[in-house]
Amino acid sequence: MTPYEIIRKKREGKQLSSEEIEFFVKGFIEGNIPDYQISALLMAIFFNGMTFEEIMALTSAMTRSGEVLDLSSIAGIKVDKHSTGGVGDKLSLTVAPLVAAAGVSVPMVSGRGLGHTGGTLDKLESIPGLKTQLSILEFITNLKRIGLSIMGAFEKMALADKKLYSLRDVTATVDSIPLIASSIMSKKMAEGIDALVLDVKTGNGAFMREETQAEKLAQTMIEIGKRMKKKVAALITDMNQPLGKAVGNAVEVKEAIQVLKGEGPEDIKELTLALGAEMLILGKKAKDFKKARRILQKVLDSRQGLKKFRELVEIQNGDGRVVEIPEKVLPEAKVKLKVESRKSGFVQKIDCLEIGLSAVALGAGRENLESKLDPTVGLLIEKKIGDEVRKGEILAVVLANEKHMGEEVVQRILAAYTIGREKVSPPSLIKKIVSSEK
Amino acid sequence: MTPYEIIRKKREGKQLSSEEIEFFVKGFIEGNIPDYQISALLMAIFFNGMTFEEIMALTSAMTRSGEVLDLSSIAGIKVDKHSTGGVGDKLSLTVAPLVAAAGVSVPMVSGRGLGHTGGTLDKLESIPGLKTQLSILEFITNLKRIGLSIMGAFEKMALADKKLYSLRDVTATVDSIPLIASSIMSKKMAEGIDALVLDVKTGNGAFMREETQAEKLAQTMIEIGKRMKKKVAALITDMNQPLGKAVGNAVEVKEAIQVLKGEGPEDIKELTLALGAEMLILGKKAKDFKKARRILQKVLDSRQGLKKFRELVEIQNGDGRVVEIPEKVLPEAKVKLKVESRKSGFVQKIDCLEIGLSAVALGAGRENLESKLDPTVGLLIEKKIGDEVRKGEILAVVLANEKHMGEEVVQRILAAYTIGREKVSPPSLIKKIVSSEK
Repeated sequence: MTPYEIIRKKREGKQLSSEEIEFFVKGFIEGNIPDYQISALLMAIFFNGMTFEEIMALTSAMTRSGEVLDLSSIAGIKVDKHSTGGVGDKLSLTVAPLVAAAGVSVPMVSGRGLGHTGGTLDKLESIPGLKTQLSILEFITNLKRIGLSIMGAFEKMALADKKLYSLRDVTATVDSIPLIASSIMSKKMAEGIDALVLDVKTGNGAFMREETQAEKLAQTMIEIGKRMKKKVAALITDMNQPLGKAVGNAVEVKEAIQVLKGEGPEDIKELTLALGAEMLILGKKAKDFKKARRILQKVLDSRQGLKKFRELVEIQNGDGRVVEIPEKVLPEAKVKLKVESRKSGFVQKIDCLEIGLSAVALGAGRENLESKLDPTVGLLIEKKIGDEVRKGEILAVVLANEKHMGEEVVQRILAAYTIGREKVSPPSLIKKIVSSEK
Repeated sequence: MTPYEIIRKKREGKQLSSEEIEFFVKGFIEGNIPDYQISALLMAIFFNGMTFEEIMALTSAMTRSGEVLDLSSIAGIKVDKHSTGGVGDKLSLTVAPLVAAAGVSVPMVSGRGLGHTGGTLDKLESIPGLKTQLSILEFITNLKRIGLSIMGAFEKMALADKKLYSLRDVTATVDSIPLIASSIMSKKMAEGIDALVLDVKTGNGAFMREETQAEKLAQTMIEIGKRMKKKVAALITDMNQPLGKAVGNAVEVKEAIQVLKGEGPEDIKELTLALGAEMLILGKKAKDFKKARRILQKVLDSRQGLKKFRELVEIQNGDGRVVEIPEKVLPEAKVKLKVESRKSGFVQKIDCLEIGLSAVALGAGRENLESKLDPTVGLLIEKKIGDEVRKGEILAVVLANEKHMGEEVVQRILAAYTIGREKVSPPSLIKKIVSSEK
């Protein structure tokens, strides 16, 4: 067994054995197989795909390349939620506290912004004092105390995936379904959870632009879960426009708090209840979607979810007053610029990728590993697809700290909107629910 | 322009611009683009191919990455011959002296054995004293004096190709027509020649097993030559069995000398005259194939070719008596083992790749960069495709220095022969002649 033979085999479209995949993953993290052989294999995988057996072997090898959390000391079914990444996607901040308040333990290992998409850790860290780098002991202790904990990847989590991801990122081998599925699932399996709800985004602001691709990815991850004896459900949801109004970090936290107060944009609320309901079903707190939703609505109305969010913030060292006086606790941008429509009509389309990239340009994300993130900047999207708009009316607000950059982004946002005469319906928010349970 | 964007573009099947290819080649040899990005690009090229414009840009960038010989001080048309690699392919040793003796200058930069195939430099070096690492000045001086010189790649020849080849070799990206064509032609263009005859091998002992692939490779190289204002002709020739009888180094030199004496196997003689005739035509020493062949036959019959070979050996410091008493000058293996047929019938097929690999196993080639080559070992192939053979008759002779290894190879050779009842015709030696002249 040599790296050359394995690359050649995959290049010829043959199925690699578990031993061959294990050999490659091990050789990679131990430094015995050079990066240039790994990247050649990755590109061959990009072209020839992987069979389900291969994807399983890769996921398993990557999970085992690091530490796997042992959450057996925590009673009940532990359920996490994972999004494939979107713009304005603050759902972890709303779903996790609601579900935890409904009695299901939520151990959540989150990530940072990637490309044009935001990250839960970056958002949470805009709350003064809040820390996301917890020790495994802190993570488990918090989980026992409040039923919820959100942290960044622990040091030895799926080591091979971490290294592999860096390489994929610079060799144009990110957007491959077998590689995405095994990357996500290897990390989720390392969390020691029992069940998982996936929010697989599709549309012009998602990594999977086509719905068929998103569904294929969802199916693959559900199958991996099944084989690993974990229950997995997936929602295929729309990412043809930002979720809610806020795009950024502090602004998204503020919007999440509004939603937990029963206010805020309808789409966020809808998706929060849908994702949460699936988590409740997998967590065996409800028998069907309708009942699960009813439970969550009650938790929301009674502000138990908001209370849980405050507990989360405080147990992770953050300023809990953020739920009462977010405008005083959260940092704010200095410059607010209006994006005014140049014509009247209906919003036909929004270039959601461009909206995400504009937010990154303002400093809400990182353009490279060295970039520093600015928690205050971002966007408020006032008009969404299907909305009627008059000339001069505000489409969006740009929150910046440098006027020059803000003005640049105003132009980008203007260009990202397509406004026309025809009435259009907004895209449906939830395209499909895929579950191993059904 | 970033390496990432270029890899992604090629991955998506789009055409790279000359600037992008130049950027990549330059970044590679200057060390600004890491190997793992190069290998990802190579694999994307393997899958998506290259347009002719891209192949041209790559060839040109690789030629210009090193030094280009200036042979303008040598009068007349300079013609080289290049083989894509075979087993028992000692044709450079017979063709080059004959053509030079017929009055065409032959500046030949040759290579060493690669994989299961032999190399001209390795064969020549089995002649005691002969050196192949010449300075450019020696190369040109010899060429002026005797019209012929054979050396290894000079230090700064097509630097990018050299580096790229090492990477392709370990990332399973060798057998890609655009990459093979640009690699060969970048080196040939660096030789400063005017015309080139290509011997493109096809069959189970060639890198291009399929004739259609071999022809495509030939056409690509001819097109590159045309664009570079060089005349190129190509013969597609058979490699379903070794050429001649001898496979090895000293034994192949001995056989080449026999051919230059008008003796030796018919296939070698045939191909020598055919390749030589094309060289004479490109060198404007003959108007058509028939006339060219007649000239070469005369040179052969008068032993002018043999004389030229001796001049070559002596000018490169070798023992010229090799042409008179090869058995005394050339080193010989200690052990000779007969491979006897286990049944009667006709030779249906020979696994020519296995024959080549067996010779390498004996030490006639290098298994890796550190292996030392043994000039004495090799094989004598007594029975070829179509030959009748009786049980117990000798199929081949193994020349070894270690009895144990020799016996192993006897078994491998036996297994490489398919003997059956049906009469079969030998494969045609020359499949096709492709030329930019016609």
